[in-house]
Amino acid sequence: MNKGRMEAFSDGVLAIIITIMVLEIKVPHGVEFSDLTSLIPIFLSYILSFIYLGIYWNNHHHMMHTVKKVSGGILWANLHLLFWLSLVPFVTGWMGENHFAQNPVALYGFILLMAAIAYFILQGQIIKSNGKDSVLAKAIGKDIKGKLSPVFYIIGIGFAWISTWVSGAMFVAVALMWLIPDKRIEKILSE
Amino acid sequence: MNKGRMEAFSDGVLAIIITIMVLEIKVPHGVEFSDLTSLIPIFLSYILSFIYLGIYWNNHHHMMHTVKKVSGGILWANLHLLFWLSLVPFVTGWMGENHFAQNPVALYGFILLMAAIAYFILQGQIIKSNGKDSVLAKAIGKDIKGKLSPVFYIIGIGFAWISTWVSGAMFVAVALMWLIPDKRIEKILSE
Amino acid sequence: MNKGRMEAFSDGVLAIIITIMVLEIKVPHGVEFSDLTSLIPIFLSYILSFIYLGIYWNNHHHMMHTVKKVSGGILWANLHLLFWLSLVPFVTGWMGENHFAQNPVALYGFILLMAAIAYFILQGQIIKSNGKDSVLAKAIGKDIKGKLSPVFYIIGIGFAWISTWVSGAMFVAVALMWLIPDKRIEKILSE
Amino acid sequence: MNKGRMEAFSDGVLAIIITIMVLEIKVPHGVEFSDLTSLIPIFLSYILSFIYLGIYWNNHHHMMHTVKKVSGGILWANLHLLFWLSLVPFVTGWMGENHFAQNPVALYGFILLMAAIAYFILQGQIIKSNGKDSVLAKAIGKDIKGKLSPVFYIIGIGFAWISTWVSGAMFVAVALMWLIPDKRIEKILSE
Repeated sequence: MNKGRMEAFSDGVLAIIITIMVLEIKVPHGVEFSDLTSLIPIFLSYILSFIYLGIYWNNHHHMMHTVKKVSGGILWANLHLLFWLSLVPFVTGWMGENHFAQNPVALYGFILLMAAIAYFILQGQIIKSNGKDSVLAKAIGKDIKGKLSPVFYIIGIGFAWISTWVSGAMFVAVALMWLIPDKRIEKILSE
Repeated sequence: MNKGRMEAFSDGVLAIIITIMVLEIKVPHGVEFSDLTSLIPIFLSYILSFIYLGIYWNNHHHMMHTVKKVSGGILWANLHLLFWLSLVPFVTGWMGENHFAQNPVALYGFILLMAAIAYFILQGQIIKSNGKDSVLAKAIGKDIKGKLSPVFYIIGIGFAWISTWVSGAMFVAVALMWLIPDKRIEKILSE
Repeated sequence: MNKGRMEAFSDGVLAIIITIMVLEIKVPHGVEFSDLTSLIPIFLSYILSFIYLGIYWNNHHHMMHTVKKVSGGILWANLHLLFWLSLVPFVTGWMGENHFAQNPVALYGFILLMAAIAYFILQGQIIKSNGKDSVLAKAIGKDIKGKLSPVFYIIGIGFAWISTWVSGAMFVAVALMWLIPDKRIEKILSE
Repeated sequence: MNKGRMEAFSDGVLAIIITIMVLEIKVPHGVEFSDLTSLIPIFLSYILSFIYLGIYWNNHHHMMHTVKKVSGGILWANLHLLFWLSLVPFVTGWMGENHFAQNPVALYGFILLMAAIAYFILQGQIIKSNGKDSVLAKAIGKDIKGKLSPVFYIIGIGFAWISTWVSGAMFVAVALMWLIPDKRIEKILSE
């Protein structure tokens, strides 16, 4: 089984997901900047999802680096991850068009949570297939970010019906946590 | 003729097909979860088609592995397969939006059947071009799954006007048959 | 300049063009097969364009094979070709939705003609850059198909206002001429 | 970190952006050529954006050529560039559908400006990571075009509310400046 073609297919799907999201930003009919106002929440959702998909692509890339042989389990765990990520444009659109209403915000968090779980399963399949002493197994030993993310998502989902601002803050916090280069964030987290 | 570029093109088309299907899941205007209820059949259709395309990508990959030289026949048989698969988003949308009505379910089965036939033709072209003693010719010697699938599709199409549940069960059964790793399924089938 | 990345980009654009055309086949609201009747011309247009793009991808692939160095001229001639091909989904949709009305059929032929001219320019740039004794220069020495195609397109465009059947026959004839493997067609043409 | 996969992902995103723009050219319902008249500004916008994305792809390709190691900074600077380019189909649609009205023209220029800044940041990250004596650092020493482009964009944005013709001329001028092969333009600029 060829790792290269699995990477190429994943890259293709991620590139398409990240790009078709922009189709949700429907061109307004008016020519005033005020006609763009109603697009602001859609645009903010787009930015957040763009960053999330960028993070997934980046991490996916690093994780694949450690893979030596691709088992059937890895292949389907990978498709499972792509499945949840493929729903990101849908929830991004629902959340944005409804100006961060409670239910759409909660569903957005749910999809992020499922993607995180799918990523976790993929990680497990890779370690299972490449050995407990593999590079990946060692690298994720102290995977604080990986463990914190689902917690943040669950808090975000729960707060959706209390304050969507807290939910938003949670989702942004996870994105920032992954965006900031590893060394610095690990320093912060270990303080 | 370069095998790599044919794989890359096929990967690209499959990645796009699998991803644009999500555009059929139109963002609802309401913010209640009940507004998502009408999307459930669309969503279920999406999952089924996502799995089917994943299986095709996976099998396509394995089959291409055995190819040594790409003839004109292989190239057009491959485009013929991609043609039928490119219609999957359309029939998925028609079936989902109409809550698994009889005709759309039958057409869905028909497209699956045509894709299976196209796959069969592609297989034949590869064997023809690479010799009867080739890896692929030997591998598909006892191709029980490949022979059962069209039978299941035809049963599924026929039952569409009697009970769409039977049709659905047939289409899901074929997907499961291919999803379960080879050794186990072959054991089951040879019992 | 790297030939591989130009091929990858062209493959990507062609794969997307060929696949987004299917988005023009809008899912009908009814569940009767008669609801699909109005889609038949759209579907026929889709098949024709799918075959044309397949032929372009195939020929593009063969032509690129002979390229040794990629000049700026080749790069822009290639983008110029992709530009006209990117308009194929639009004219396919216009022709299909209007059941092969006169003007859309003529425009369809015009886009095919422009793509053929763009292909011709690209060929010229490659020969210019790789030498008159290059593989490509020799291969296209007796390029009967390349010379006949624009003639057929122009006849097809002209007949659009007399009989769209003739136009359609011209466009199908060109596609068949390229589809049938070289040796046979050259035999037919030289008879 | 693998340069190849970053190139492949960027190629994928650029190929999709350049192609989905065509979806903004909605198929008209009428069959007269006059029904296409209202599409002319959309079509002109499409051509301009197609050329801009072609230039970005071309330059991106050349710049990546000089990269030896891909740092986290390069990766995110690249995604930042792709983000602004992903908005090109939206502003192209808004500008085209509103027949080059003042605000859409200004926003179009703004997105071009942000993409130019993002490209500049990416350049900085590559030089930072590959050394001040790197190929890129030397190559952009006299980067007249890179310095002129933002000036032209800003003039274009400012003139949007005075004369959109001047804005359009500015945007076309930048495109031409990059399209014309280096030696000639540098000769012109140094005169």
